[in-house]
Amino acid sequence: MLFTNATILTMNPTRDIISNGALRINENRIVALGKTDELRAQYPAEEFVDVGGKLILPGLIDTHVHVAQALIRGCADDMALIQWLCERVWVLQGNFTHDDGYVSTRLCVAEMLKSGTTTFLESMLAQRYGFDGVARAVQESGIRACLAGIVMDLGTYATKDNAMHPGMIENRETSLLGVLDMHRKWNGAANDRIHVWFGPRTPGGVTPELYREMSDYAHQRDMGITMHLAEVEADKTFLREHYNLSPVDFAESVGLLGPKSILVHMVWLEDAEIAKLAATHTSVSHNPSSNSKLASGVCKVPQMLASGVNVALGCDGGPSNNDYDLIREMKLAAILHKAVALDPLIVPAETVLEMATINGARALGLEHEIGSLEVGKKADLIVVDLGRLHTTPSVNPVSTLVYAATGGEVDTVVVDGTIVVRDGQLLTMDEHEIMAQARQHAQSLYTRAGIEIKLRWPVL
Amino acid sequence: MLFTNATILTMNPTRDIISNGALRINENRIVALGKTDELRAQYPAEEFVDVGGKLILPGLIDTHVHVAQALIRGCADDMALIQWLCERVWVLQGNFTHDDGYVSTRLCVAEMLKSGTTTFLESMLAQRYGFDGVARAVQESGIRACLAGIVMDLGTYATKDNAMHPGMIENRETSLLGVLDMHRKWNGAANDRIHVWFGPRTPGGVTPELYREMSDYAHQRDMGITMHLAEVEADKTFLREHYNLSPVDFAESVGLLGPKSILVHMVWLEDAEIAKLAATHTSVSHNPSSNSKLASGVCKVPQMLASGVNVALGCDGGPSNNDYDLIREMKLAAILHKAVALDPLIVPAETVLEMATINGARALGLEHEIGSLEVGKKADLIVVDLGRLHTTPSVNPVSTLVYAATGGEVDTVVVDGTIVVRDGQLLTMDEHEIMAQARQHAQSLYTRAGIEIKLRWPVL
Repeated sequence: MLFTNATILTMNPTRDIISNGALRINENRIVALGKTDELRAQYPAEEFVDVGGKLILPGLIDTHVHVAQALIRGCADDMALIQWLCERVWVLQGNFTHDDGYVSTRLCVAEMLKSGTTTFLESMLAQRYGFDGVARAVQESGIRACLAGIVMDLGTYATKDNAMHPGMIENRETSLLGVLDMHRKWNGAANDRIHVWFGPRTPGGVTPELYREMSDYAHQRDMGITMHLAEVEADKTFLREHYNLSPVDFAESVGLLGPKSILVHMVWLEDAEIAKLAATHTSVSHNPSSNSKLASGVCKVPQMLASGVNVALGCDGGPSNNDYDLIREMKLAAILHKAVALDPLIVPAETVLEMATINGARALGLEHEIGSLEVGKKADLIVVDLGRLHTTPSVNPVSTLVYAATGGEVDTVVVDGTIVVRDGQLLTMDEHEIMAQARQHAQSLYTRAGIEIKLRWPVL
Repeated sequence: MLFTNATILTMNPTRDIISNGALRINENRIVALGKTDELRAQYPAEEFVDVGGKLILPGLIDTHVHVAQALIRGCADDMALIQWLCERVWVLQGNFTHDDGYVSTRLCVAEMLKSGTTTFLESMLAQRYGFDGVARAVQESGIRACLAGIVMDLGTYATKDNAMHPGMIENRETSLLGVLDMHRKWNGAANDRIHVWFGPRTPGGVTPELYREMSDYAHQRDMGITMHLAEVEADKTFLREHYNLSPVDFAESVGLLGPKSILVHMVWLEDAEIAKLAATHTSVSHNPSSNSKLASGVCKVPQMLASGVNVALGCDGGPSNNDYDLIREMKLAAILHKAVALDPLIVPAETVLEMATINGARALGLEHEIGSLEVGKKADLIVVDLGRLHTTPSVNPVSTLVYAATGGEVDTVVVDGTIVVRDGQLLTMDEHEIMAQARQHAQSLYTRAGIEIKLRWPVL
């Protein structure tokens, strides 16, 4: 497969942009990259796809996703965080069936693929969503995923007053051993598109002993770990009161720092903690929409970048964002910190594109396989059409992509050498069937959970 | 014309939402609103458009637009404000021809219409963009617009060190008298779709005498006035140093407060100034993307709303946003203030929808004609399709629209009773011709202005 006539944002170490570029794929690898003329001359017999001047860039990498939350999109808008969690999100997720998990994953993955995400990290898969169904949905869709299964042995969140819905509670056996079981079964499946990670709950839900046991398993098996940390100020207060430690020091004390750890949100940190993240090569997943909508605060991304922390991007979930469009997330990541720091030069477009590609790959421990377009890497790429009204004229493809585009401009998506979206249409799944099933399952779920949605304005 | 089978967000005084709703238009007015069954029974012979459960809401109102900046979209990304203005935006705009003004207006208006904006306020039309061409583009496109012409008699911005490009400088005669001329010629044109306003420059560019003269004309002729104010801290410092007044007190001293004044950005205000805006019924146009990207700061929107100020929304321009999509702007307006105030309950989805509709109409002095769907009002409405992956499931049409949708979901647009967009396609203009002309004119403009765009990354 040969794509020609593209502007190629390689995201390689020198960040070369190839004008009039071409890219050749063989099986699931990129085997040639260069000028269209040269590659056409080199492979005269090869069938080619002329992309008509569109952009080709690495598939985007979303480092913080809750697949089970697509089905509960918008369930708790404009609510305080504790009500959001305890009265809506956990109640609904605590009523999930395995079928709901499968349907929600398909909805979530379909949205991600269509908007240019080729790899995602699911952060906290509960047993009740059905591991196998989620993994099967990933396998069938063609997307690449790291699936982190929940690890927990306590049923509290931050304070004991906020009990978790019983349907959400697991123990050491069901969670830790369940994830290990899933690892044996699915890690490396689908031509290595699926990896299995640990997704422990925040400190209120896990004893230090279980964190350490999990961390030992992770090191033995080279498994990644991802955890929400320091999302709201209460997280920090809880750790100070219970362990007399800062969030990052606590994470260190139970073995959660290191190059295959992704700590998520990380809003409430001190400078010394940021330095420790850099020193231990621990990655951060920055989720600006979620942090804003839930009023968690503003993550110190400029300081993290200046300190050398590997910062990647995440869309989080249907009740916190409420979309899974990483192109829109890039814009917010680029403009939010400028507003807060009163500095228009920080977090430029190029930096957020790194966050959504090569930094994401590094966070997942996959920087030698994905995250940039280089010969020998896996063929995960997207074609984006900047020839729309709102992206015209374009004097810089990177800033047009970040500041003007949305996921709606994604034209073609290739994962592991296979075309999964073409002309903006999903090839691996039936979009209308997915939406119909999602509506039906959402309705049953709300009824089962006893949640009545009331609008603020009178409905006639 | 009868639209049936819609969820109708009326934005009427009681904010009724009509399920299974229908809406009837006669000429340019809404003549009936109700349940589909009832209206079908009442008008059995009428041809109807079944919108299949989609949303109908008032056309969106963008209260701060620079039409001439569509052509220079992305010309100055990730630059400091003074360089942004003095080395890029003003240099390019100072080299505009009348043809550039026409082409840029068409590009801007086409993007706005396709993404659901039916009325906009152009904030500062310079003579050199060609008033007549801009007005003609508005007339031909079918959109509704208030066009504010520049008023100025000084060529400085904030400090004397930052001189304006000579092509941007006008004097009392060309500006004030030019706008009055335009008012005579175009006010009320296109079946009253076009109104002419005053768009004075910020205090560095206008003497108090000229502000007062303009303000007298505005009162005599019932013309609106819009001005950038307190966008950056330097604006406040300048007024303190030169006039020993706060921004709002300065505005008051030269006759710029009142119910037909829209002050734009308004980031650097004290509480007493906010109270004065409320007391004088002066409207504020909030532009969160622009304020964020240019690092102007965060406007105190929650305090303004609590004080009773009429706050409307604006997308600003191609170098500051960089899109003209008011649906995307609504999301940022809803989430930005939550992040900064650490309060998830402020500026809810319903409030930003008010800002983008009825508050915008009030700001323009058109609240009896547009901004809500009510019998007797002008037929300015949009149909939005929430049946997409990223808007499924939808449990609340308002929050789905604000938190998950983009302008890409706009299906049909009606302005003044005429369908201008149908099935997502512009009917009044040729989109491909507009884009081709925009690319060509942008290229010539950059060459003429001597601006070479250099990318940060190596281009091979």
